[in-house]
Amino acid sequence: MGRVEERLRELGIELPPPKTPVANYLGTKRAGDLLFVSARVSELRGEVGTEVSLDEAYAAARQTLVSLLSIIRADIEDLDRIASVDKVLGFVRSASTFTKQPRVIDGASDLLVEIFGEAGRHARTATGVAQLPFGAAVQLEMVLGLRSA
Amino acid sequence: MGRVEERLRELGIELPPPKTPVANYLGTKRAGDLLFVSARVSELRGEVGTEVSLDEAYAAARQTLVSLLSIIRADIEDLDRIASVDKVLGFVRSASTFTKQPRVIDGASDLLVEIFGEAGRHARTATGVAQLPFGAAVQLEMVLGLRSA
Amino acid sequence: MGRVEERLRELGIELPPPKTPVANYLGTKRAGDLLFVSARVSELRGEVGTEVSLDEAYAAARQTLVSLLSIIRADIEDLDRIASVDKVLGFVRSASTFTKQPRVIDGASDLLVEIFGEAGRHARTATGVAQLPFGAAVQLEMVLGLRSA
Repeated sequence: MGRVEERLRELGIELPPPKTPVANYLGTKRAGDLLFVSARVSELRGEVGTEVSLDEAYAAARQTLVSLLSIIRADIEDLDRIASVDKVLGFVRSASTFTKQPRVIDGASDLLVEIFGEAGRHARTATGVAQLPFGAAVQLEMVLGLRSA
Repeated sequence: MGRVEERLRELGIELPPPKTPVANYLGTKRAGDLLFVSARVSELRGEVGTEVSLDEAYAAARQTLVSLLSIIRADIEDLDRIASVDKVLGFVRSASTFTKQPRVIDGASDLLVEIFGEAGRHARTATGVAQLPFGAAVQLEMVLGLRSA
Repeated sequence: MGRVEERLRELGIELPPPKTPVANYLGTKRAGDLLFVSARVSELRGEVGTEVSLDEAYAAARQTLVSLLSIIRADIEDLDRIASVDKVLGFVRSASTFTKQPRVIDGASDLLVEIFGEAGRHARTATGVAQLPFGAAVQLEMVLGLRSA
């Protein structure tokens, strides 16, 4: 078992079956040593700040990251090929008065560091939008660095 | 005539004159083998889900991609230099109840695959925003991979 | 003193102390010759088009860029290592009728060209969102190219 897989097991995280896109795009696309990862939305639906609490949205960001990892594993086969997490872009479906988007996306950032350690620390943008696909609460995309070999 | 140009002709697509930015930014910027492509908005104005239908928004995404291609051609001169479409980021000006942003951005993704085949399949994020420049319905940016030579 | 620092002095710009992230992400992350720069929000709060004017928002975009430069300097130590500005993504907290997001983000683009000249010209996306972290008026992220050495 790979190191990342072992770390996931230690954290009690089981990757779900990957939901790969059914349309004309890919779950991930490699460009040199970069891996562009398509956005996924959280299973949790609802507007954060009214229908969804900060804690629920934090958990939804964590869940969305787990979902992304399952797609990434399906594409690159071995999560140990991930050398670094370079960039996370997180959209939070925000009530007009909700301004704690960074605290929501911490759900993903915290888990990345739990799994990958220092290599999991990344540049990040967390922002608020009025609506998301399927009415989801959170949406995440990433750019990863892969080992050259 | 290049292969991409020939494919565009087969599809009955004529690239319009490129609308290059008039401010202090560029239509595209090369970084190694990556080409960052500035966002363009659709000619179609209006909020999707109320003023603009899903089908109209899909067509607007397709039109916006054609507009991007004309800018890219003006900058790199030969569209055959495009090795891959790495990433598409699409913003849909969404009514508060509209949640089918991915179906809108399919208008761009489908055309990319029609033109470039497998190399046109990309990582993608489709999200909803409350407002766009000029009140447009759709906004698209891309990251492309270029051939080294 | 480096060339960029000298240029900043000529422009009368003093970089503030860097506000590095306190959560599990970084101000910047290097990936090969690219530097992904985490988003920062403007000190100015408020909705553009109602509470905040276009001119105020333009100034806020400029201020946000200065804030990003201070973080970048803290991370890469010498701003002369910046070879190019590749990409700017700007979010404007927009009233439902405000559609001049590009004119707001010009505040950052104009300053980039004042500082870096041609190398400061970049690909760009300026879009409108309903809410931003801390209720800020403007949010900016960047991708820079670094010199290899």
